[in-house]
Amino acid sequence: MAPSLTFQPVLERIAEEMEQRPGRGRAADYIPALAALDPHRFGMAVAELDGTVYGVGEWRQPFSAQSITKVFTLALGLAREGDELWEHVGREPSGNPFNSLVQLEYENGIPRNPFINAGALVVTDRLHSRTDDAAGTLLDFLRAESGNPELDFDQEVAASETAHGDRNAALGHFMASYGNIGNPVPVLLDQYFRQCSIEASCADLALATGFLARHGIRADGTRLLTRSQAKQINAVMLTCGTYDAAGDFAYRVGLPGKSGVGGGIIAVVPGRCTLCVWSPGLDERGNSVAGVAALDRFTTLTGLSVF
Amino acid sequence: MAPSLTFQPVLERIAEEMEQRPGRGRAADYIPALAALDPHRFGMAVAELDGTVYGVGEWRQPFSAQSITKVFTLALGLAREGDELWEHVGREPSGNPFNSLVQLEYENGIPRNPFINAGALVVTDRLHSRTDDAAGTLLDFLRAESGNPELDFDQEVAASETAHGDRNAALGHFMASYGNIGNPVPVLLDQYFRQCSIEASCADLALATGFLARHGIRADGTRLLTRSQAKQINAVMLTCGTYDAAGDFAYRVGLPGKSGVGGGIIAVVPGRCTLCVWSPGLDERGNSVAGVAALDRFTTLTGLSVF
Amino acid sequence: MAPSLTFQPVLERIAEEMEQRPGRGRAADYIPALAALDPHRFGMAVAELDGTVYGVGEWRQPFSAQSITKVFTLALGLAREGDELWEHVGREPSGNPFNSLVQLEYENGIPRNPFINAGALVVTDRLHSRTDDAAGTLLDFLRAESGNPELDFDQEVAASETAHGDRNAALGHFMASYGNIGNPVPVLLDQYFRQCSIEASCADLALATGFLARHGIRADGTRLLTRSQAKQINAVMLTCGTYDAAGDFAYRVGLPGKSGVGGGIIAVVPGRCTLCVWSPGLDERGNSVAGVAALDRFTTLTGLSVF
Amino acid sequence: MAPSLTFQPVLERIAEEMEQRPGRGRAADYIPALAALDPHRFGMAVAELDGTVYGVGEWRQPFSAQSITKVFTLALGLAREGDELWEHVGREPSGNPFNSLVQLEYENGIPRNPFINAGALVVTDRLHSRTDDAAGTLLDFLRAESGNPELDFDQEVAASETAHGDRNAALGHFMASYGNIGNPVPVLLDQYFRQCSIEASCADLALATGFLARHGIRADGTRLLTRSQAKQINAVMLTCGTYDAAGDFAYRVGLPGKSGVGGGIIAVVPGRCTLCVWSPGLDERGNSVAGVAALDRFTTLTGLSVF
Repeated sequence: MAPSLTFQPVLERIAEEMEQRPGRGRAADYIPALAALDPHRFGMAVAELDGTVYGVGEWRQPFSAQSITKVFTLALGLAREGDELWEHVGREPSGNPFNSLVQLEYENGIPRNPFINAGALVVTDRLHSRTDDAAGTLLDFLRAESGNPELDFDQEVAASETAHGDRNAALGHFMASYGNIGNPVPVLLDQYFRQCSIEASCADLALATGFLARHGIRADGTRLLTRSQAKQINAVMLTCGTYDAAGDFAYRVGLPGKSGVGGGIIAVVPGRCTLCVWSPGLDERGNSVAGVAALDRFTTLTGLSVF
Repeated sequence: MAPSLTFQPVLERIAEEMEQRPGRGRAADYIPALAALDPHRFGMAVAELDGTVYGVGEWRQPFSAQSITKVFTLALGLAREGDELWEHVGREPSGNPFNSLVQLEYENGIPRNPFINAGALVVTDRLHSRTDDAAGTLLDFLRAESGNPELDFDQEVAASETAHGDRNAALGHFMASYGNIGNPVPVLLDQYFRQCSIEASCADLALATGFLARHGIRADGTRLLTRSQAKQINAVMLTCGTYDAAGDFAYRVGLPGKSGVGGGIIAVVPGRCTLCVWSPGLDERGNSVAGVAALDRFTTLTGLSVF
Repeated sequence: MAPSLTFQPVLERIAEEMEQRPGRGRAADYIPALAALDPHRFGMAVAELDGTVYGVGEWRQPFSAQSITKVFTLALGLAREGDELWEHVGREPSGNPFNSLVQLEYENGIPRNPFINAGALVVTDRLHSRTDDAAGTLLDFLRAESGNPELDFDQEVAASETAHGDRNAALGHFMASYGNIGNPVPVLLDQYFRQCSIEASCADLALATGFLARHGIRADGTRLLTRSQAKQINAVMLTCGTYDAAGDFAYRVGLPGKSGVGGGIIAVVPGRCTLCVWSPGLDERGNSVAGVAALDRFTTLTGLSVF
Repeated sequence: MAPSLTFQPVLERIAEEMEQRPGRGRAADYIPALAALDPHRFGMAVAELDGTVYGVGEWRQPFSAQSITKVFTLALGLAREGDELWEHVGREPSGNPFNSLVQLEYENGIPRNPFINAGALVVTDRLHSRTDDAAGTLLDFLRAESGNPELDFDQEVAASETAHGDRNAALGHFMASYGNIGNPVPVLLDQYFRQCSIEASCADLALATGFLARHGIRADGTRLLTRSQAKQINAVMLTCGTYDAAGDFAYRVGLPGKSGVGGGIIAVVPGRCTLCVWSPGLDERGNSVAGVAALDRFTTLTGLSVF
């Protein structure tokens, strides 16, 4: 793809194709706020390095960011703590979901990577210990990078997650039993569920991801991460960013990406642009069906895979 | 890195640094032929798309390719069989080694990816069914791509692997019990161990890997794989190519790569060049210590990571 | 052994042998109150069906009953709930400890048996729902059966368990995520840790176990369990009563038994007598070293194994 | 039950009840010879210590003994090797079937107990090393104890097992990779499958099991096992004899027992009698549905449980 072309026609073509695609998966049903969403909704945005944004469909519609926030929390944690963070959380793919707990046990409470729930809990715990307000720190960062001061938590979603939070509570206590959690588990869970509840649009999240395409440089030109750290987060996204479908995502899309059960996926073309796509229908591994398909088409049409 | 620079000075600097590096790991000790190797030996080669090769240290010294051959067998199998191959082997990282068998059991005899032993056995089995000589097909391909007609099996190594082959025999019979192996297990093991035994140098293997940087085009200009298939193999290498250290390799090196217990590692910079490094000292996960370090330095010095 | 003989000489011979035995294991060290105990302490009691008790060593010294209480909670729960209880907890041995969590996950939150911690939490939860005071119900029962109104909780031990209770909290929340816990997890944990903290002597516990040798009849002649239920609890004790050493315990001792990390073990000779032995030094699987040895000698000297 | 009563009326009552019982399970379908059996067939025999046999239904009909033979092979191995045998195979229940391979891996090739396939392969391997003919040694023993010189291997069944033997071959090679198999795997498998193929009737097998009720004494009055060894085998049968339903079998039947996929189950009342029941319909865990039910009724009607 020639650098002079804009992304707008590509996005429009993809949106058209998605509209005609049968089969959209099912919205996440474990909390009411997500279950009500129509799986046919669709939005997509591309942000260039300079902050120019292209969009199609409901690209300005806020949705529940959920696990997409794990990328930003990781960046904020790594920026503050550096490599020491990796003594508390690994960076290897987790393999089968069914092994998550036995792996925690086998590996003495050190989660495999920062994008499984156990790992994200550890990263949040450490960020909270350093900032005394992990969720607030994250929200400030997302507002600044997206240029949207109205981004906020969805209290109803956070409360709903808390009410269904026994599994995350189990993970928290289990890691605490190995000494790998510093804050009281209920405090940690509150921080974690608030982070997950942040609402943002494709435009917001594509912009907020920009520092990963700019090798660590924030929207205001200051440096959040070293070039090497930005590369490292991209690598972890590629190998661990889409639950148990990371291999498949790399195979089909070929970009660092991170999905959430709200139906969003962010992706990075290092040195070039960032993307965010949203469609609430999920496949059985928790990734947006139309979202993965749209990113697949994007890399095919533009040739912008890392491979 | 400007395209006009040659790779030679970079390689020389890396070789120098490696020489001063303490700690080289231990050579694989499960067969005598490998155990005898000095872990301080070192060679490295870079091949450009047109076949120009740069090298340093023992870059023309043949060594036992071992699991590196799994990449070529996969390419040959995929070229013949296409996507049907993926019904018999997955493309997700395998997580913890300790889970390999339980995963096979849990997933009904379908190995997680083509680069763990179980998966490579399946790919070899299927290639053998289509060619009646999987090992010979592989050897012909490597000779053609490297331009080195003297490449050959090491019969002693193959015999030694067979003598210590109970674990691979167990994997073969186990998958056969699920109907995922077509040839008699002893026939399959013979093919498999002969493939692993191929001896080739860094120069040979960097050249033979060229088709993955050329988006599927062989050294003679004919097409082996579609652009999409070449991208897919690179993706599988990045997520699954270095045993249980794939996440760490992506994080440090940021290139599709594949290692072997002989101490070699191949790597791909799509659209630009291919690399092979060799040093027999392994870390506890089976990857060459100096090999990973050298590739890490290469991407840092040249900026040629995919991220 | 002829019925007319008393057990006293046998107990004295065993005590003598134990005194000369080198190697006593180590006291449990996860809470201070247990860690301080001298592993050489020893007591043993046998209670006949009519309540006659024989004893040797520190057989009247109270110690922390810990997991021994799981037998009584199970009996009290089964008496109230009948077979419905078995829909919430299994009765199969748990195999390797390391699999406990993965088994819970694989079996949808239903623990394997009532004597692993997860299973005991479920039984306590259900008893608490029916009695509104599981721990009090248990204490009342033990006081009545032992004839010792001074039996009580050890508040310090209970507090200490709570402070180190993250792993049990993890189990509780994990099962709650499957809907297999009815009370709030903190309430359940409080009940559970109080039960474990009960202090009783060998004489107390041998007497309290009597209903299992009397085929379900309590000390006062009333029936707690049907004959069949008493047999069933004995069967579960034999197959699951000594952590991951149930097979070994059956092989060596050949009696239904249940151990606790306080160093106590109770055992049943159906239709004949009950035993309790105490010595705080544990083997690596959490069973009293001298306790198992003493029971082994008892069955050898008297021929009173079930096999 | 008074010693003066004979077992005949009890057996007749049980046979009648079984006839009216709906639901018989399904015959094993992995080899044709077993799949053809009508699940409604039924036979049962009780042998007293002196060799008096009572029977009902098809109690003289030979059937495929299958895993029931594992008890006799264990006894013959233990008689020759003593406690050293237990360094090569454990005596703990195996927990979930699905973990069998991971347990082998986790425990370095030492199977959990002699009644899972891996463990039986080890016992056969060791008996074969000491006798040069494990299967022949077993056959001779069964002929002698049953007094039936016509007992024999069923070559067709053995051939059929071999043809479907990939899973056992996998186990054999896997343990060989840990050095826990002394004979070549194909030799071992041949011995193993021949043992499994032995055909015998309820009467034959009840008689052949007599040494376990006689505390180690064979039919001819000579001693095969010490009293302690006989007790130990009974203990292993109780805790591990019915696949993953050992806890349930102990709970319902309360006797040491061992089942086979041919539909047979043997059971021991130490010091009193032995039983064998046969009905080819299996439950999902591989135990004869009517067989377990009949033994359950037997212990209920006679009170002859060990608990």
